[in-house]
Amino acid sequence: MSAFPGVKALVFDTFGTVVDWRNGIARDAKVFLARHGRADIDPHGFADAWRKRYQPAMEAVRSGRRPFTRLDVLHRENLDALLGEYGITAEEAELDWLNRAWHRLDPWPDAIPGLLRMRPRHFLAPLSNGNILLLANMAKRAGIPWDAILGAEAAQAYKPQPEAYTRTAEILGLAPGEVALVAAHNGDLAAARRAGLKTAFVLRPTEHGPDQTTDTRAEQDWEAVASSFEALADQLGC
Amino acid sequence: MSAFPGVKALVFDTFGTVVDWRNGIARDAKVFLARHGRADIDPHGFADAWRKRYQPAMEAVRSGRRPFTRLDVLHRENLDALLGEYGITAEEAELDWLNRAWHRLDPWPDAIPGLLRMRPRHFLAPLSNGNILLLANMAKRAGIPWDAILGAEAAQAYKPQPEAYTRTAEILGLAPGEVALVAAHNGDLAAARRAGLKTAFVLRPTEHGPDQTTDTRAEQDWEAVASSFEALADQLGC
Repeated sequence: MSAFPGVKALVFDTFGTVVDWRNGIARDAKVFLARHGRADIDPHGFADAWRKRYQPAMEAVRSGRRPFTRLDVLHRENLDALLGEYGITAEEAELDWLNRAWHRLDPWPDAIPGLLRMRPRHFLAPLSNGNILLLANMAKRAGIPWDAILGAEAAQAYKPQPEAYTRTAEILGLAPGEVALVAAHNGDLAAARRAGLKTAFVLRPTEHGPDQTTDTRAEQDWEAVASSFEALADQLGC
Repeated sequence: MSAFPGVKALVFDTFGTVVDWRNGIARDAKVFLARHGRADIDPHGFADAWRKRYQPAMEAVRSGRRPFTRLDVLHRENLDALLGEYGITAEEAELDWLNRAWHRLDPWPDAIPGLLRMRPRHFLAPLSNGNILLLANMAKRAGIPWDAILGAEAAQAYKPQPEAYTRTAEILGLAPGEVALVAAHNGDLAAARRAGLKTAFVLRPTEHGPDQTTDTRAEQDWEAVASSFEALADQLGC
């Protein structure tokens, strides 16, 4: 018996939920930093510092202070600012390569096996703040079996704005309650629930490293709570 | 040597170029018409009559007389009008099933083998007037290996408006000249070329049935001209 009666599409938060952004960014930052003689900078600290600028950058869009701007652009502005703080200058091609580290993130080991089990019975798409190209390049490189690339750019709104969820359901030709969001973040799920979607929490206890203190447990009675995508597939009867 | 030096993404017209819409619609129309005791109506004629309303419906959007409206909605309005002419009434579920015949079209036999050869070296996406759900359901059912679902809904503009082409390139993070449109229609290719894209004509001599008189040859010096997706893959060196 499925945990989600009536749900036809599963949409997924991506950074942290499907892919391990912190180790992926650190891997490529390490190469970049070594090339610039800055092995003194911890690559994981670099990843955290870059990611720390993520919410404020999107907030400028969510608040209406700037028009919708895709995440590749925000990531690049944030990178330029971060490198300025470190006093590092680099060529355009190298900056573009590092910015696209977000396109080269690896999935958690259970993600693709779980998605492949869910796919025959559900429509699968990311509902991420990543832009279409970022998510599509990531999927192409890693073999993530999405049926379409959805998310902020298709909806022209950043989570947790309600339009990010409701427009995604509309693109899918579904009522919000026929769509379930899978995410490792209680805040994202809370916003999805307010917009009418079903919710599944998947625990990612090391997204932020070994000492993670946030999102270490389900904070509401989400329709499903699982320790991996494979465990979620079990609950869905897939 | 590739026919497209510098081209990183291949985008594809879909109805007629990738899939055989006429036989697909006729197949499901035949079932519907028989159920309603109207075997007197030729299913291929029904498909042609439904398709005939396609350009005028999009023209209402292109001209600005109505806001961007996805193709599933236009198809359904056109179906309702067509059935009204035939004096046929049906239940909502049945109308929705028939309207989604556009989601269940089969690719031409060479399409998927050709795409699978092109995919390792190119980013592949539809650039169709079909909406995201339509194209994604079609791909899921038939196994079409797109990297992302692009087109009118992502660009919020219907071909041959220039924005349909230029916004698609922008989503891909590419200059227009780094994108090539593959299409069986000279008019589509001409608009893509005016927008700065590269162009490939693939001949589909029976899209409109055995007596087709349009698009039976390349009408400009398109960068590539091929008789099938496999022949195009040859020209691309894939």
